[in-house]
Amino acid sequence: MAHAYEHPHPAVTTDVVIFTLAADSLKVLLVRRAHLPFQNQWALPGGFVEIGEDLEVCALRELEEETGVTGVFLEQLYTFGAPRRDPRERVITVAYYALVPMDRLHLRAAGDAREVAWFRCDALPELAFDHADIVRMAQQRLCAKLQYSTLALQFMPDRFTLGELQRVYEIILGEPQDKRNFRKRMLAYDCIEDTGTERRNGNHRPARLYTVKSPGEVRIIR
Amino acid sequence: MAHAYEHPHPAVTTDVVIFTLAADSLKVLLVRRAHLPFQNQWALPGGFVEIGEDLEVCALRELEEETGVTGVFLEQLYTFGAPRRDPRERVITVAYYALVPMDRLHLRAAGDAREVAWFRCDALPELAFDHADIVRMAQQRLCAKLQYSTLALQFMPDRFTLGELQRVYEIILGEPQDKRNFRKRMLAYDCIEDTGTERRNGNHRPARLYTVKSPGEVRIIR
Repeated sequence: MAHAYEHPHPAVTTDVVIFTLAADSLKVLLVRRAHLPFQNQWALPGGFVEIGEDLEVCALRELEEETGVTGVFLEQLYTFGAPRRDPRERVITVAYYALVPMDRLHLRAAGDAREVAWFRCDALPELAFDHADIVRMAQQRLCAKLQYSTLALQFMPDRFTLGELQRVYEIILGEPQDKRNFRKRMLAYDCIEDTGTERRNGNHRPARLYTVKSPGEVRIIR
Repeated sequence: MAHAYEHPHPAVTTDVVIFTLAADSLKVLLVRRAHLPFQNQWALPGGFVEIGEDLEVCALRELEEETGVTGVFLEQLYTFGAPRRDPRERVITVAYYALVPMDRLHLRAAGDAREVAWFRCDALPELAFDHADIVRMAQQRLCAKLQYSTLALQFMPDRFTLGELQRVYEIILGEPQDKRNFRKRMLAYDCIEDTGTERRNGNHRPARLYTVKSPGEVRIIR
C-alpha cells in the first residue's frame, strides 16, 4: 500500500457557507474572485490550508481575510473531493457552515476577494468550482438542523408571536408550515414561554407574545 | 493569500468505521497495523488517497484491501485534521462509517493489516493515531441516526417482536429504553406492521409478531 511521502499530495482548502435571514429571505455570503481560475466569478469565501494549521482555524482565517466576518461558530459540513473539481490540480475542500444574525456582521472585501455581498439562496449567480453543490448541501443540513434543534430561536427578538417564529421556519425551509401543527410542535419543545401579554397585529385578533426560555443556547430536540 | 502550488501539501487519508451487531453488543472492525508508526497496534482500516482517486472510492478500496470487506454503503462522518495527529507528517483524514449485518461480511487480513477482528465498542484496545476519537464520533452519529431513521429495522429478521426491536435499540444506544414509550414511538413511525400472529416467549405472555413494511429501505422519520 502507498505511503504518503512517496506519492504526490493533494492540496487542501476550506470553504465557508455563511447564511443569514434578511428581508424575508435566506441569504448566503459570497465573494467575487480577484484571481484565476474563475476570475471575477462569485464563490464561497475560502482558501488553502497552511501546512501546520488546524482546519477550522483556516476556515475562520480565510473568512475574515476575504469578508471581514469574525466571531462565527462554524460547524463542519462535508468534505468535497471529486478528482477534477479544481482545474489547477487535485484540491480537496473541507466545507463549514453557520447561520448568523445579519446585524452581527460587518462586511469588508479584501485579499482574494474583489467584492463581498449577500445573495438570496433562491437567486444565486453562477458559482465557481462545485460551490453550488456545497451551498445546496449546506441548505439541506440547515433545514435538517432546524427540525431537531432550537436554532431558529436565536433569530427571534426579545418578545415575538408564534406567527413570527413560523415565518422564520418558512423562510429557511422554503415552504409554508401548517399553523396548527407548527404551534403544537413548538409548544411541545418547551423552549419558549407565554409572557402573558399580547400584541395587536393589523386586522387579526391579538396574538400572544412569547419569549425564549434559554436565549443563546441551541438545544437538540426530539 | 496562499496558492496551492507554492506551498507544501498535506497528505490525505480515509478511515472507515464499520459497526455491526453481534452477541448482544455493538462491535467495530479493527486491523492490527503491519507497519510503523503504531506497528502492531489496532487501528481503523484506511490509507492514503491516490492523487486522482475519489475519496469514497479510496475508503472502499482500503477497506477491501485490509479486511476483505466489500459491498458496504458508506456515509461520510467527519474530517479530522489536527496538525499533529500523525507523527510522520501532516495527515488529514476523511472518516466514513457504516452499520452492517455481520453475516454479510467475510474477513481476511492483508496489505497493511496483520490481523483483522471485531471488538466490542465498550471494550476497545488502545488505538493508533486519534482513531479512538473517530470511533467515538461515529458512535454518536450512529445513535443520532437511529433516532431519526429506520436504520435499526435492517437488523430485524422477517418476523420479530417489539421486545426484540427494543433490544437492538438498547444495544446500539447503550442504555435501556422505556418499554411503553418505545412501543408508542415505533408504531407511530408507521414502518412496521402487525402480522396477526404471536410468539410464546418463555414465561411471558405471547408477544405479537411484526414485520417491516419496506424492508431494505432506510427512511428518515420525524
